[in-house]
Amino acid sequence: MTADHYVPSREDHFSFGIWTVGWQGVDVFGPAVRPPMAADRAVRKLAEIGAFGVNFHDNDVFDFHATDGERDKQISAFRQALADTGLVVTTATTNLFGHPMFKEGAFTANDREVRRFALAKVMRNLDLAAELGAGVYVCWGGREGAESGASKDVRAALDRYKEAFDVLGAYVLDHGYGLRFAIEPKPNEPRGDILLPTAGHALAFINELEHPELVGINPEVGHEEMAGLNYAHAISQALWHGKLFHIDLNGQNGPRYDQDLRFGAGNARGAFWVVDALEAGGYDGPVHFDFKPPRTEDDEGVWASAAACMRNYLILRDKVRAFRGDPEVQGALAAARVDRLAEPTLAGDETWRDLVGYTVDADALGERGMAFERLDQLALEYLYGVRGS
Amino acid sequence: MTADHYVPSREDHFSFGIWTVGWQGVDVFGPAVRPPMAADRAVRKLAEIGAFGVNFHDNDVFDFHATDGERDKQISAFRQALADTGLVVTTATTNLFGHPMFKEGAFTANDREVRRFALAKVMRNLDLAAELGAGVYVCWGGREGAESGASKDVRAALDRYKEAFDVLGAYVLDHGYGLRFAIEPKPNEPRGDILLPTAGHALAFINELEHPELVGINPEVGHEEMAGLNYAHAISQALWHGKLFHIDLNGQNGPRYDQDLRFGAGNARGAFWVVDALEAGGYDGPVHFDFKPPRTEDDEGVWASAAACMRNYLILRDKVRAFRGDPEVQGALAAARVDRLAEPTLAGDETWRDLVGYTVDADALGERGMAFERLDQLALEYLYGVRGS
Amino acid sequence: MTADHYVPSREDHFSFGIWTVGWQGVDVFGPAVRPPMAADRAVRKLAEIGAFGVNFHDNDVFDFHATDGERDKQISAFRQALADTGLVVTTATTNLFGHPMFKEGAFTANDREVRRFALAKVMRNLDLAAELGAGVYVCWGGREGAESGASKDVRAALDRYKEAFDVLGAYVLDHGYGLRFAIEPKPNEPRGDILLPTAGHALAFINELEHPELVGINPEVGHEEMAGLNYAHAISQALWHGKLFHIDLNGQNGPRYDQDLRFGAGNARGAFWVVDALEAGGYDGPVHFDFKPPRTEDDEGVWASAAACMRNYLILRDKVRAFRGDPEVQGALAAARVDRLAEPTLAGDETWRDLVGYTVDADALGERGMAFERLDQLALEYLYGVRGS
Amino acid sequence: MTADHYVPSREDHFSFGIWTVGWQGVDVFGPAVRPPMAADRAVRKLAEIGAFGVNFHDNDVFDFHATDGERDKQISAFRQALADTGLVVTTATTNLFGHPMFKEGAFTANDREVRRFALAKVMRNLDLAAELGAGVYVCWGGREGAESGASKDVRAALDRYKEAFDVLGAYVLDHGYGLRFAIEPKPNEPRGDILLPTAGHALAFINELEHPELVGINPEVGHEEMAGLNYAHAISQALWHGKLFHIDLNGQNGPRYDQDLRFGAGNARGAFWVVDALEAGGYDGPVHFDFKPPRTEDDEGVWASAAACMRNYLILRDKVRAFRGDPEVQGALAAARVDRLAEPTLAGDETWRDLVGYTVDADALGERGMAFERLDQLALEYLYGVRGS
Repeated sequence: MTADHYVPSREDHFSFGIWTVGWQGVDVFGPAVRPPMAADRAVRKLAEIGAFGVNFHDNDVFDFHATDGERDKQISAFRQALADTGLVVTTATTNLFGHPMFKEGAFTANDREVRRFALAKVMRNLDLAAELGAGVYVCWGGREGAESGASKDVRAALDRYKEAFDVLGAYVLDHGYGLRFAIEPKPNEPRGDILLPTAGHALAFINELEHPELVGINPEVGHEEMAGLNYAHAISQALWHGKLFHIDLNGQNGPRYDQDLRFGAGNARGAFWVVDALEAGGYDGPVHFDFKPPRTEDDEGVWASAAACMRNYLILRDKVRAFRGDPEVQGALAAARVDRLAEPTLAGDETWRDLVGYTVDADALGERGMAFERLDQLALEYLYGVRGS
Repeated sequence: MTADHYVPSREDHFSFGIWTVGWQGVDVFGPAVRPPMAADRAVRKLAEIGAFGVNFHDNDVFDFHATDGERDKQISAFRQALADTGLVVTTATTNLFGHPMFKEGAFTANDREVRRFALAKVMRNLDLAAELGAGVYVCWGGREGAESGASKDVRAALDRYKEAFDVLGAYVLDHGYGLRFAIEPKPNEPRGDILLPTAGHALAFINELEHPELVGINPEVGHEEMAGLNYAHAISQALWHGKLFHIDLNGQNGPRYDQDLRFGAGNARGAFWVVDALEAGGYDGPVHFDFKPPRTEDDEGVWASAAACMRNYLILRDKVRAFRGDPEVQGALAAARVDRLAEPTLAGDETWRDLVGYTVDADALGERGMAFERLDQLALEYLYGVRGS
Repeated sequence: MTADHYVPSREDHFSFGIWTVGWQGVDVFGPAVRPPMAADRAVRKLAEIGAFGVNFHDNDVFDFHATDGERDKQISAFRQALADTGLVVTTATTNLFGHPMFKEGAFTANDREVRRFALAKVMRNLDLAAELGAGVYVCWGGREGAESGASKDVRAALDRYKEAFDVLGAYVLDHGYGLRFAIEPKPNEPRGDILLPTAGHALAFINELEHPELVGINPEVGHEEMAGLNYAHAISQALWHGKLFHIDLNGQNGPRYDQDLRFGAGNARGAFWVVDALEAGGYDGPVHFDFKPPRTEDDEGVWASAAACMRNYLILRDKVRAFRGDPEVQGALAAARVDRLAEPTLAGDETWRDLVGYTVDADALGERGMAFERLDQLALEYLYGVRGS
Repeated sequence: MTADHYVPSREDHFSFGIWTVGWQGVDVFGPAVRPPMAADRAVRKLAEIGAFGVNFHDNDVFDFHATDGERDKQISAFRQALADTGLVVTTATTNLFGHPMFKEGAFTANDREVRRFALAKVMRNLDLAAELGAGVYVCWGGREGAESGASKDVRAALDRYKEAFDVLGAYVLDHGYGLRFAIEPKPNEPRGDILLPTAGHALAFINELEHPELVGINPEVGHEEMAGLNYAHAISQALWHGKLFHIDLNGQNGPRYDQDLRFGAGNARGAFWVVDALEAGGYDGPVHFDFKPPRTEDDEGVWASAAACMRNYLILRDKVRAFRGDPEVQGALAAARVDRLAEPTLAGDETWRDLVGYTVDADALGERGMAFERLDQLALEYLYGVRGS
């Protein structure tokens, strides 16, 4: 297999957040290690390395305090870069966590002025998102949460969170925008506990909205793994609900700070199953990367890291396709009776009545091996590349 | 405040699983350290220490392989103990994880016979639960999950999981039982990853059922904290959805094996907010403890541990009531603008149109302190008992 | 018990890092929320609220790029504040993590120039520390580590780490400074994995140094708890080795990002045992707080938070003393045979020969309860303040 | 590369604990799923699949309550299997955690009789270990710990722990056995917090022993990863101290219950670096697997799982050798200046005096990229098998 095999093309629908390659490296313990990167430069470089699209926060393109003139100028440069490169805006989002006014939340801030301004800020960027052709609008409520128990009335906060999505839903519908929202869950950091901490909590929340059909989720590998949860399971459940509107791929090493490693680094074994779950579940949105090039890297390292995200996805996609296509794997799946789970527990015309008093030879069933280790070893050997290459 | 203040009464609605005080201490590294305890003995002792009710798995009362005669005899002894003591069966559940036939799941086992038998087993115990007056039927799918990626088709598993609840819902409705189901989420252990791993995932799942109104959740302190999640937030969100049908109180020290410590041990600070969330949210179900007396304890220690669960709840209930009633706390809450979150972000007749172009003095808002530390310190001083006692 | 009871005095030996109250709130997701605080202001305010001493990084007092004149001016203001208030410098340390040159480490940076400069920077601040009367010099190697496997030769890094302490030991000895070093371990953040990740690893490392007697550890509550470890156990083991040279008290909620909550917030139950371990082990160094006032707080909140650290320590100190002095507790300890562990396993003149063929009634021993739950409940009731107040 | 390439030979020095393949699947939630396996059968099957040696607990071979006659019979069968197969006993250990008498510890039990019996039990098995030719004697103190703060005097426990190793050291020396001890750290499970919780804590402890040269460590992949620690770093530090006497390889998915997955499953990326660290550090002890075939497996699955441990090691060994031998990798290592860390910070004749006032162009150094992402991507591509195969 030649290296060329893993060269991204636009058909792969890879996209990046402008803020990913643009991250300057500010953390709690140190300042920027890289100069600012204008959004238009990010677009041009991403195009060079093979991306298809971008995602942006309003303040990735223009400053929070930008005048209208500055804003227009920055948007114009961004738009020009898109036009020049053919990159599309797949997705947009709002920065509701950077400015100190959002230190305690945005949609669920105790201060009503903050909540009102947050909605206005989103609405303004929804216009831009629609104009630039975005199909999905991501909402990461990174500051919606608390470090201490009394400071946030959680049920009231959920009321306000719902209100926000109801208002924004009306905004999008009234404007006829084709945008759908994707909530991005995270358990903690930068807040002690964040509201809607996992994919599950966000999926549950959506059902209470006025327009649930407009809202899905944008789960992130690292965010679920920070809670020790299985990301492939998360996206499979989201697909089952018809709610996987977007994905944020990156890498993480279990419960600790948000590492935002490039996709593939971190839980490599998990990454294999992530790609498998996306392929099997028919996900057709952008394959989006939300990572941070480590602080150790200069500009060259930033692009090496970004390119590797796509390359790793392609490598893994090849692997999972070969794995699923391998007759020995198919035999092992059958031996593990994985396919039998698709068969309903009740036959077509059965009801609970047909199960009353149902008996089995329980001990004999208990003695049957499931043959999962053999199956999993086959998968691992695809990950290792010692089969199927 | 006298010690007598913390003596449980039946009005407190404390309940215990029969399996909690009956745990013999078998773990991965060692065998039983305590003799078996018959369900009727558990009932009588729990009554003595002040409990109101019990929860039971079918196989807490009679063995998996019990003949009908043995089963009747054990149930009879159990029923007699209930009658003698006045304890109520608040809740019942099914053991779908002990017998080796369930090693790979029950409702979502790859083997269809296992799934069918699991449903039959639940149905039979639903009859007993109804007969004994249980109002809630808990479903912990402890073996529904996987250690490896290919062994479980997660979307098919969710189909079967849904099918199980749809069948059981029909069973309950057709029998006119007053029972409602409560799904108990857990992230892992004994499986590598368990389906419906958190309160959020279970809440989301319920919305896909034929009779969602019949199904709520039974979140457990330790299970949420194993994922690093805030249990008080979990029950607040469940209450917000109208789905907190039951609770499992115990103690845990963060992400690690399932410790099942007595309530109050583990995350003491979290326990304060748990009781506060239950009080504030109007939870009126049984205050149920699902803990394991440590293996170091003999029978006397078992009961000391069980009694302490209730005592700690009463201590904490006193504290949260005093905290909420303290004028200084109320002032601190107002200073933190916690109450303002109840106010809708839009006024009654406003729409998104009223927010277009909404501006604020962002920097001035950013400079305002939230006064959360003062508020939280007041709460902590209630926990410590240096205020309000 | 009156509130006055918990007012700190200089005899309590409370100290704070200048950087704690001075933290401006920069994190990965947002900029400063509070203005810079000059070191001399921090000193004056800390004196007002009852602190005894301070700890400082060189760059807490003067900027990395300060000219000699600016440096002198800042030091002079700092010194004047110390003189005016009577606060002592208990401890000092070096900022080897902020400037981008340290992005990949300092003592163990791959680049030798960085390592050499790091040593020079420490030496210069050792002079200042000695001049200001510090007794302990803390070394937190926050950037010594790696995100990826090949980027750091761990054994070579430990050679360089040892070299650094050997050089600095010689420096201190040759100058006749009374300073001792205290290594502060941390498992991760800001690096993916940090060298010497726990108290244990640092204690082991010290034994390889040329002057192990000069070096001990400075374990931090949150850093050990980020690895799910028991901090009270960590300081007890450090005391057992004679190596608890300093402590960093704060609060954390298990494995997640470094929260640096005020002492008492976080794991409240753990905090009780921390104070107990310090009291029981005869720790007589500064009772030092290394926390970050949450980003939600303004200046008033900063000081409320700092004052609460001391207050909580005093509250807990009262509790553990009352707990240990309570005859019922002493009875419970005896029932749990805790005191028997002090008795050597072999009698004074016994050798292994006396144990050959030693037999017991194993099953009878196995049946004996340890009565730990009763004992632990007594402790918990002291924490809750429902006993002994 | 042919599959034959990964067939284990005796030269690979693979060994297994008898208890690994013999695990019957008892866990907290269910009983045995597989029948008992006699030690001699385990030996014969392990020989078939290519192992070199075995490790055993005394009670893997004979029951705790075995009479001398039963004991001799079982040992005899074990010995015969060794003789027939040529497998060696590389390692032995004592079961000090199964019997209820050890529920609260063994070397550090509060009850002195337990401590004395524990020593006698170890001594008796040391005789057998020596006779069978074991070179290493592993000590896992799985029950040495506590769930609650007052129940264990940690400093007294460390005194007793030291006493135990001093007594056992004398025993081994007095008998002229060639055995060395290897302490196996674990943070928790089955106890709430275990003493000597990490590789670091055990390494530190050893320095306090009368015969530190006799004692090293036996770190286990899963045990370190349960604390979120980097296992490759742990073994590198142990090698640096000259204390890596043994290793326990298996798989884990971060902080949660002890999973004991087969080697390679779990943190696959970490496994690559584990093998690299062993190869680079010149570890020459047995390559030992301490895993548990999942409960889903029957006997066939047990052996598939065991065989895969060895196969995965061989696959990874090939990969790390190819990685280290690749000129492009060597160039990338040089670009990352990894080799420069081997160069002392001070030149041969320099002292601290040569560094006084040492200056650099800090900002220029800060701007230099480390090129770690490119290097790490090369490693990842070896893991994936898309390079070098």
